[in-house]
Amino acid sequence: MTLNILFAAASERWDDYEQPLRRALSDAGLGDAILSTQLPAAEVDYIVYAPNSDLRDFTPYTRTKAVLNLWAGVEDIVTNPTLTQPLARMVDDGLTRGMVEWVTGHTLRHHLNTDLHVLHQDGIWRNDDVPPLACDRPVTILGLGALGSACAQALCTLGFPVTGWSRSQKSIEGITCLSGDAGLRTALSTAQIVILLLPRTPQTESILNAETLSLMAPGAMILNPGRGTLIDDAALLAALDTGHVAHATLDTFRTEPLPADHPYWAHPRVTVTPHIASTTRPASAARVIVENIRRGEAGEPFLHLVDRALGY
Amino acid sequence: MTLNILFAAASERWDDYEQPLRRALSDAGLGDAILSTQLPAAEVDYIVYAPNSDLRDFTPYTRTKAVLNLWAGVEDIVTNPTLTQPLARMVDDGLTRGMVEWVTGHTLRHHLNTDLHVLHQDGIWRNDDVPPLACDRPVTILGLGALGSACAQALCTLGFPVTGWSRSQKSIEGITCLSGDAGLRTALSTAQIVILLLPRTPQTESILNAETLSLMAPGAMILNPGRGTLIDDAALLAALDTGHVAHATLDTFRTEPLPADHPYWAHPRVTVTPHIASTTRPASAARVIVENIRRGEAGEPFLHLVDRALGY
Repeated sequence: MTLNILFAAASERWDDYEQPLRRALSDAGLGDAILSTQLPAAEVDYIVYAPNSDLRDFTPYTRTKAVLNLWAGVEDIVTNPTLTQPLARMVDDGLTRGMVEWVTGHTLRHHLNTDLHVLHQDGIWRNDDVPPLACDRPVTILGLGALGSACAQALCTLGFPVTGWSRSQKSIEGITCLSGDAGLRTALSTAQIVILLLPRTPQTESILNAETLSLMAPGAMILNPGRGTLIDDAALLAALDTGHVAHATLDTFRTEPLPADHPYWAHPRVTVTPHIASTTRPASAARVIVENIRRGEAGEPFLHLVDRALGY
Repeated sequence: MTLNILFAAASERWDDYEQPLRRALSDAGLGDAILSTQLPAAEVDYIVYAPNSDLRDFTPYTRTKAVLNLWAGVEDIVTNPTLTQPLARMVDDGLTRGMVEWVTGHTLRHHLNTDLHVLHQDGIWRNDDVPPLACDRPVTILGLGALGSACAQALCTLGFPVTGWSRSQKSIEGITCLSGDAGLRTALSTAQIVILLLPRTPQTESILNAETLSLMAPGAMILNPGRGTLIDDAALLAALDTGHVAHATLDTFRTEPLPADHPYWAHPRVTVTPHIASTTRPASAARVIVENIRRGEAGEPFLHLVDRALGY
């Protein structure tokens, strides 16, 4: 029987993914599969899905063995009551590596204060402010999933003392791993740079708020490549106004693109980046998708299944 | 017999180094040594030296067993004909780590093009220019001494393909090591980011000149945390004007501080940093100095001796 794979995402994604997916299918011995953006619902075996798809009602997809998300974030689909099929999120090596590069690059940017020179090429030789070594710059990462733990290890290798905080207690060599409310207080109060890489769940909604921001060390800096919902924006703006938080580099927002009149754009202590910290790369993502299809056809367990109760 | 150690450097250095040196001497069981900025020349056993010292004539220092340089660069002293005593340069773990942090930070800055966002917080959501992964961004380091090889390894760990070029052929795991004229051509032509960490010698004078700059890949970027003399400034400015070199971040110059009217300050494709890529940290440098004094007193060979013929 022919294997039918529906590609359900905004049309520009089809241009990016069609050839990588066909190549990965062929490499996996599944070159005979039908891959299309239009298939009768009852005949679809797998759905390759992005949250920008029009597909909202999964009820007619009675034969579908799995919905394979193209992105790491599943918050827009996990609560869909019509979705009863197994849901896998994207865990892509390219996505992880891109995130590690963004996080290490912006951590070093804040650590070295390179903006001082990038923004002031005015002939003044400002050499009296030597930064500490990384070993004297403690960093905390909230979230120790695939992305957070990879970033923690990269920063540890660069010499930063790294504390990681997560919902459930983890153990990672070289990293001080904390959990729970008391752990969060310690993680926030001991860091000079705090990096947010938690998933979006009801429990992480505004985890950085007026109270938790006040726990941070004066002059600490924030990177948010995780989710816009992790931050109470009004509370962060207030902490930036007083200088309690010295700088925030934000890549994710509650509304994207961030509206041009949002106060983050104009704030001198904020750097907005346009949700570029990590982007799924088609070639490597296609291999992840096809590996799950291969597993489904071989009767092996799917990789990266979403836990519906936890929401990620 | 009392051990006499002369500290010969600009007076502000004495404030930075006196206590770290006394502590390191005490830790090494040499707490009885005399450490001073004023000692009769004929009674001096060791000279702790910085090139900003007034001391230029080493002839009267007949008892001196070694001159221990506080800095990595020895070009201002190695050609001094009165210096017949052994000369050791600074190889300081803190200095190496600081250099690795500056080099990785600015390599990632160029790789991720963070300046685009730092310089343009104007409400425009520029998310269509995803950088390649580090694995698709070849980097070349000219110079594979203590600093260059440490930077090469750090960049390799971050995923960059790294080529290193040095006078004598080296072998470093994970790094493509080249030497010689043909090797230099390959090293320059294959990189998107070229990092200069060669010592200042007659052979490295203007090693980046009109001819070698023309070998570089169009749009490549340059970091120079090494020595200002490595670059023919007029040739670099010409290559920047045409865009053949897309950007240069320069930390060292032929004249420092870089004069306020130097064209580098105003050039849109240049970032000047004020010789901060690596600074000797007193605590760790003092331990390196004292270890050599301990070795001298124990009859063991000195570490980090300068080869006068090579000039470093």
